[in-house]
Amino acid sequence: MEEKIKISMLLEIYGRLLTLKQYNLLDDYYNKDLSLSEIAENENITRQAVRDFLKKGEKKLFEYEEKLRIMEKNIAQEEKIDEILYEISKIENSFTDEKLINVLDDIKNKIRVLI
Amino acid sequence: MEEKIKISMLLEIYGRLLTLKQYNLLDDYYNKDLSLSEIAENENITRQAVRDFLKKGEKKLFEYEEKLRIMEKNIAQEEKIDEILYEISKIENSFTDEKLINVLDDIKNKIRVLI
Repeated sequence: MEEKIKISMLLEIYGRLLTLKQYNLLDDYYNKDLSLSEIAENENITRQAVRDFLKKGEKKLFEYEEKLRIMEKNIAQEEKIDEILYEISKIENSFTDEKLINVLDDIKNKIRVLI
Repeated sequence: MEEKIKISMLLEIYGRLLTLKQYNLLDDYYNKDLSLSEIAENENITRQAVRDFLKKGEKKLFEYEEKLRIMEKNIAQEEKIDEILYEISKIENSFTDEKLINVLDDIKNKIRVLI
């Protein structure tokens, strides 16, 4: 997974364990796609200070994931859900009963929102 | 939910964020069902010291849940999974096709291990 996407996911999961300052700068950089220079200007700090905040915040996020593995579990669960959806689609293809297909579609929708 | 079960679940989710000492004492008390006196004797500390360790550890667990809400999400997900399993069972009851019932059973088993 691309590093930027990974950090954005970790921020979503563990962001509330960071300081508000750390959270906001990581959010600016990884979610709102602001550049280091833009963040430095907005916050009235140097680019190097922004870089240090980001590094420190990232390190904490990776430490939490190392301990709790919530992202890892979420990703594994999503893969299993994709497999189940695929299997249900296969059943739909091998039956013609319209009522059955409707209830299976309904179940697929419910499974999709599990995560 | 009973407080003891709740703390045991929180310990399972966030336990690695506690100190090892806190984790072990909470594990003794909430999972291994040792009494305060037994733990005090094993650890060679007073019952009051055990009580303090437990209180401090519990407080941290509740603070993590307050911020991350992983247990809350897990419980909501389990409820949705139960609903989906129930719906699939209803489909099984209204169809007689053996092949269909087998694949639905297979899907139910896969959904059961999602959590």
